[in-house]
Amino acid sequence: DSNLKIFTLNSNPALAKEIADIVGVELGKSSVTRFSDGEIQINIEESIRGCDVYIIQSTSNPVNEHIMELLIMIDALKRASAKTINIVIPYYGYARQDRKARAREPITAKLVANLLETAGSTRVITLDLHAPQIQGFFDIPIDHLMGVPILGEYFLGKKLDDIVIVSPDHGGVTRARKLADKLKAPIAIIDKRRPRPNVAEVMNIVGHIEGKTAILIDDIIDTAGTITLAANALEENGAKEVYACCTHPVLSGPAIDRIANSKIKELVITNSIQLPEEKRIDKLVELSVAPLIGEAIIRVHEKQSVSLLFD
Amino acid sequence: DSNLKIFTLNSNPALAKEIADIVGVELGKSSVTRFSDGEIQINIEESIRGCDVYIIQSTSNPVNEHIMELLIMIDALKRASAKTINIVIPYYGYARQDRKARAREPITAKLVANLLETAGSTRVITLDLHAPQIQGFFDIPIDHLMGVPILGEYFLGKKLDDIVIVSPDHGGVTRARKLADKLKAPIAIIDKRRPRPNVAEVMNIVGHIEGKTAILIDDIIDTAGTITLAANALEENGAKEVYACCTHPVLSGPAIDRIANSKIKELVITNSIQLPEEKRIDKLVELSVAPLIGEAIIRVHEKQSVSLLFD
Ligand SMILES: Nc1ncnc2c1ncn2[C@@H]1O[C@H](COP(=O)(O)O)[C@@H](O)[C@H]1O
Ligand SMILES: Nc1ncnc2c1ncn2[C@@H]1O[C@H](COP(=O)(O)O)[C@@H](O)[C@H]1O
Repeated sequence: DSNLKIFTLNSNPALAKEIADIVGVELGKSSVTRFSDGEIQINIEESIRGCDVYIIQSTSNPVNEHIMELLIMIDALKRASAKTINIVIPYYGYARQDRKARAREPITAKLVANLLETAGSTRVITLDLHAPQIQGFFDIPIDHLMGVPILGEYFLGKKLDDIVIVSPDHGGVTRARKLADKLKAPIAIIDKRRPRPNVAEVMNIVGHIEGKTAILIDDIIDTAGTITLAANALEENGAKEVYACCTHPVLSGPAIDRIANSKIKELVITNSIQLPEEKRIDKLVELSVAPLIGEAIIRVHEKQSVSLLFD
Repeated sequence: DSNLKIFTLNSNPALAKEIADIVGVELGKSSVTRFSDGEIQINIEESIRGCDVYIIQSTSNPVNEHIMELLIMIDALKRASAKTINIVIPYYGYARQDRKARAREPITAKLVANLLETAGSTRVITLDLHAPQIQGFFDIPIDHLMGVPILGEYFLGKKLDDIVIVSPDHGGVTRARKLADKLKAPIAIIDKRRPRPNVAEVMNIVGHIEGKTAILIDDIIDTAGTITLAANALEENGAKEVYACCTHPVLSGPAIDRIANSKIKELVITNSIQLPEEKRIDKLVELSVAPLIGEAIIRVHEKQSVSLLFD
């Protein structure tokens, strides 16, 4: 369909290429570079008048550069008479700033949603928002895809025995439950607690893990503090081996060192965030979200329901 | 007046301090840092409920970081119940992307104006926009200050004899005329022209410059190609000496080398953009825009006309 165009920006060009192949189109011709003073220069090198345009861009680190690239691209497409501007954001940055936890905090996840709409996007396709409520920050249609089925398929294929799915904190129990359903396994929870102020946290484990293969699951692994402490606590408390998985490998600061030195046997991630070469250690297994996103784009374009993709 | 608060972000803290001193208030307590993954973290450490808040931030290089800092700060102030949110942008970045010069270009200067309004700013104070039409990109009040009087005062103080004010291109003639009025001097224009495609440009000088002290003026000096070629052409055509001045010292890429190796005797700039130490060569003279901006803030706050400041 020559009315469907897919453009990539600078966050995930490899993923964008994979998605375009699945959808069966060439990537749109464009370049996103910098002027000498650091300002973004976008050239769209083919007509998109009257087209349904999909832009692939995660707002991963460098997050502010990636957000501005996306906003400027939307502006350029709007002024070039695109029919619809569909932004595909495999990883939605600033999602942890989704509420005022303290006085005078910004709610940057909402700000960014407003900015994307102001620039002119007409639809959002995204994956595993840190909080599903962020869907409501948009007043345009949003399709919210799930990473759990992809992670689950991988572990099904491994045919592990006697597994338990573990949430590394209270906030992730629903996600752990979803993976456990898929793998027909029980769940456990790491119940971190500070007995008194200024006393070290105690890692209490709720559920049976002794002798079992534990699979930790989170949406984002950032500095990897929580997940590696959890993995070590599981081993100390008798787990046979510990796997971990997440949708979004932010992996900033000390993350890679911590993972390398932890009891985690294998960390399964997706390519929602493009991992630089130097972070590709042996323990990491990367799964692609391209089939999921490609299928979502085809369905959106053919005006079919996307919600069937969710399980 | 305890209802007036001035906050700085990361682009020009020294200028912000100077402005606060002139207005007679302490800088608001806040910090703007980065989380481990590069996301901006803003802490506003005092109540601003019901206050008139002024934020000092140039959208200079790194422009995308500085724009996002400004947007997130506006969001935080809005949610913390500021009465008015006045953004002071001494240098407005992306101003050269103010029209579609080619097919499918963005108009980023307009996009940024929309983003600033969407975030919640209620007034803009800025200085020497690359094109005055950018004022019309905003639907909120904007005060547009001028750098020429500051540059003019400096040259008046030098008591140079037999001067001519030179515009380095056609686009800057109005600005040159303003400086010439202030210095009671004639003007000249560098009339660059390409005789045929693929033939080098010819630097033709319109006006009398022989034996005179030439003062080149521009709004922005970015890579300094235009201004240094102009300076050298002036000397070759008999100017006695060549000064140059601009409001916004972007000075990216080869700029400092070019200026150091050019015929320019002195380059007079303002602190609308904070210059890093390594760019502070001997030929540079920096003038402060703090008195101008401070006075503008006082007048806005006291509901007096700001336009009186323009000459
Ligand atoms: N990029 C970030 N890196 C680390 N912490 C963050 C980041 N953004 C927001 N936060 C903090 O993380 C908390 C929210 O995380 P959560 O409880 O997992 O939703 C908030 O209190 C934020 O202050
Ligand atoms: N940051 C930048 N650095 C260099 N050139 C730019 C920049 N932003 C826009 N431009 C180009 O500069 C031209 C406008 O400059 P001007 O004619 O001086 O208004 C446009 O054709 C833009 O493509």
